[in-house]
Parts: sequence; C-alpha cells; structure tokens
Amino acid sequence: MNGEIEINPRYSETDQMGVIYHGNYFSYFEVARTNLFEELGYSYRKIEDEGIILPVIEANCKYKKAIKFNEKIIVKAEISFIQRIKIGFNYTIYRKSDREVLATGFTNHGFVDKDLKPIRFKMFNEEFKTILNEIRNDLNEY
Amino acid sequence: MNGEIEINPRYSETDQMGVIYHGNYFSYFEVARTNLFEELGYSYRKIEDEGIILPVIEANCKYKKAIKFNEKIIVKAEISFIQRIKIGFNYTIYRKSDREVLATGFTNHGFVDKDLKPIRFKMFNEEFKTILNEIRNDLNEY
Amino acid sequence: MNGEIEINPRYSETDQMGVIYHGNYFSYFEVARTNLFEELGYSYRKIEDEGIILPVIEANCKYKKAIKFNEKIIVKAEISFIQRIKIGFNYTIYRKSDREVLATGFTNHGFVDKDLKPIRFKMFNEEFKTILNEIRNDLNEY
Amino acid sequence: MNGEIEINPRYSETDQMGVIYHGNYFSYFEVARTNLFEELGYSYRKIEDEGIILPVIEANCKYKKAIKFNEKIIVKAEISFIQRIKIGFNYTIYRKSDREVLATGFTNHGFVDKDLKPIRFKMFNEEFKTILNEIRNDLNEY
Repeated sequence: MNGEIEINPRYSETDQMGVIYHGNYFSYFEVARTNLFEELGYSYRKIEDEGIILPVIEANCKYKKAIKFNEKIIVKAEISFIQRIKIGFNYTIYRKSDREVLATGFTNHGFVDKDLKPIRFKMFNEEFKTILNEIRNDLNEY
Repeated sequence: MNGEIEINPRYSETDQMGVIYHGNYFSYFEVARTNLFEELGYSYRKIEDEGIILPVIEANCKYKKAIKFNEKIIVKAEISFIQRIKIGFNYTIYRKSDREVLATGFTNHGFVDKDLKPIRFKMFNEEFKTILNEIRNDLNEY
Repeated sequence: MNGEIEINPRYSETDQMGVIYHGNYFSYFEVARTNLFEELGYSYRKIEDEGIILPVIEANCKYKKAIKFNEKIIVKAEISFIQRIKIGFNYTIYRKSDREVLATGFTNHGFVDKDLKPIRFKMFNEEFKTILNEIRNDLNEY
Repeated sequence: MNGEIEINPRYSETDQMGVIYHGNYFSYFEVARTNLFEELGYSYRKIEDEGIILPVIEANCKYKKAIKFNEKIIVKAEISFIQRIKIGFNYTIYRKSDREVLATGFTNHGFVDKDLKPIRFKMFNEEFKTILNEIRNDLNEY
C-alpha cells in the first residue's frame, strides 16, 4: 500500500499543443484518490453509498514537465490532513520510466451529506472512522 | 425556433491531431438536444425533475471535415421519430462562416424512470405529452 | 494477444444520471484501439511519428446496460476491415465480473498524412504494411 | 470589454454528485481566457499561429457553491500580472441570475515557442507586445 497507481494517458486527453490537457490532471488525481481509498479498505463507492460525499473545496496543480500520450505515468496520492469536517490530499505525478516528477498538486474536500450539509467525521460508521483516526494519528506524529 | 445553436469549440476539446476530438461531437449533439427541448418549451431539467430520464440507446456520427479550435459552428438538432418508449434525434454540424456541413449524426433514446424502467410517453404529464404528440403528427405527415 | 484491455471507469466520467456519460465510451474504444496496435507490435505513437494519422470517419455505439463508476470493464477491439485508404474496428464492452455485454460499437478511419491527404496503406513502411497485410489475409479467410 | 463570457453548463460536464465535475472548471477558465484575448484584439489562435504557446505552469480553483446543469454562469477572466516570460490570470465564476460568486481561481502560464523553450514577450511582434505593455502599465498603476 503506497497510494500509487499507473495511468496510461489517452489520446482523448491530449490537446493541440501535443500534450495532455492541463485540466485532465485533476481526473488523474481523482483516479489516485479513488485508488487510495480502495487501498485503505474503504472504497469511494462505499462512502457514497453511506450518504457521505466529498466535494472538492480547493484544487491546485503545479505543472513541471508536459505529459505525452501513451507515456505511462505513476500518480501517487497521500492524505495531507484530516480535520472535523475536511480532508486534504497531496498528489505527485511521475514519469514511469525514470520516476521524474512531472507535476504536483493538492485537493481539499469537505465531508457532506446528500443535501450538501457538512457532517463531522465522528458521525461516520465505526469502520470508516477507525481508518481515518489511524491515519490522523500517523499524520500528527510528524 | 429552428433547433440550431452556436458553439465555439474549446481548446480543451482539441486533440494532438490539432482538431476537435471526435468523441466530443456527442457533447455538441447533446448541447443542441438540450437547446431543442428548451425551444419546444420543455427543458431537459424539467423532464428530469419529473422523474423521466432519456438514456442514449444508440449514438452515431459521420465526420466529413475536421472542426478547429475557435472556429464557430452551428449544431442543429431535429426529432427524427417518437415511438411509445423511444425518441430519436438527427444532428447536423455546420461551419458558421459558410454553412459547410462538417458532420452529421443521430442519437436514439429510451424513456425511462429513475430506476431505468421504460415509461410509455402516454404516461407523461399533459403538457409534455401534448408537445410530443404535436411533433409526432408533424413527422407523420411526411 | 486478444485485443482486450481492462478499464476502471472514473468518477469524472459519470454524469448526473449516476452512470458513465455515453460520449465517454468513444474514449474507451480509443483506449482499446491503442492497446490493439500495441499488441500488433506497432504503437499508435509510432504510426503518428511516421506521419500517418487515422482520423475517424464514422463512430457508432449501441448501449445495452449502463456502466457504473468503479465497476471494472473489459473493452475488446478487433479490426473489422482493411481497405486501400480505410480501416475499421469493432468494439465490445463487457462487465469484468460476469462478462455481460454492456455495449458494442464500431469506428471507421481513413489513412491520411499530416496535411490530411489520403495515403494508400501500400505506401507505408514494410513493417507496418506486413502487419496490416497479414490481418487482411486473416479477415478475408472468413 | 470586461473579460466576461456566459457559459451554459452541459450535461456531459455533470458527475454523479449531480453537479458540474470540479475538473471542468478549468475548461471554463480557458473559455474565459480565450474570450479575453479575443476582446484584447489578439486571439489565442493568432498567438499560436505565430509560434507562441502559453502552457499552464500552475492552476488553482476554490469552489464555493456547486454549479448545476443548465444553470447559466458568467466566467470573468482578468490578467493578474505580466512578467518577462510569464503571464497570470484570475477568474471568477458567477451564477448569471443573481451574480452570486460560485468559484474563484487562477492560472499562471509561461511564454514558450513550439519547442517549449521560454520566449521573452519583448520578442513578440509589435502589435501583441503593445497590447501586453498597455495592460502591464495599467496593472502597475494599482
């Protein structure tokens, strides 16, 4: 479990500059975030099925080197913080062949219910709460 | 009311061939379809709010000339048929400057409820049913 | 080598119907097409590097069952025909878990150069021409 | 000339949360940026035709309220800074009906040539340089 997933950039994701369109990096981040939840043992679908939604509050990306079509990349997601009603993720995109960093970014999300009202993560079911609490403790140790 | 809407192709919609990615034409068709419902006096949002969904059963596009970034186009949508539980649309994409045809296509849709079960359009509310019946009569005259 | 590739549908690819947006199936087809060229030993990037482009002339999809976020699918691409200046592909999308067919489709493509002028595939380099000729012979046996 | 453009959010841009997918805001920003260049009298296509490309170095968005399908928005772009080899833009997305702010963001771009090498904007042609210099002077007055 390391929060990393391989992505093969698609032709549909390129633009006429001949590289991956910058807006598509946020879909790559989301793929890595989905994978991270999977690895933590609590899939994003399961979260939504329980009525918890994680809308993005802020998204950011710094672009270092262009990503090309069909040039495999690794996208790594990490939890950066967990607060009462918020969670943050950091991302790094590497070229697969040589691990060169191509981009970094972050997204912050709220915990809300289906009516988009904030929920404190203490209200989550035991299993998910336990997972989040463990991560939180790990983060606080640094 | 002629079912036509102007679209200004976006940079994000181009691909590394230097033209609009072929898959994006289906979003253009959908913009024209949304506009057509608007013109008919019954918006797509209103339809969904009443619990009717129109999932695509088949989609087709014939590509004649490439569409370039920022080269304005006109997308025309027309209803091709209305059946008990199905509706069809035809589309034509023109270059705005000279009305040259750049692509044509069609989509067929089912009438279903939120559980994706087919609904006969006779079950729709009077207003929407009347609109559809009038179009249907016009189509049958040809 | 069977022309199949696994795809994990992304959250960004869903729409408010709660399923994968129909226009995105054409990106899935393209991923399978890219993979097929890879398997044939001649990547799409290599083709473009040699100045050959394969613009879509016609695209079609029949939708049978909705695809859900994070519900893994298999997309299979096959070459349906090779003609002097055209090539066709058929696609089938299966749910990974039970191999149920969720959609089928096709795309037809021209062989053109960077100025979008048709090229006969006989003009391609020996390696690529040989690959295409072998497939063509196989197709003609049926 | 105020850098504002109206956008009608598309069905294809929604996700299963029932709102516009957060990654699509960067396409909206780009539409407003394209429009701003148009208003300044120097279209983005003209810039690219002269061999100048403006790749994104950093992109950011703060999401305040969700954007719904078919709920018209106004996207405003403004130049935030012009430096030797960099240019920045700020964006605000308003709901059209009541001018409520739904999101804000920024993008920073480099000036590069087709080989992605930095170009100082002093090297641009007189017309474009004059436009940029005027904006720069206006910005410095504040």
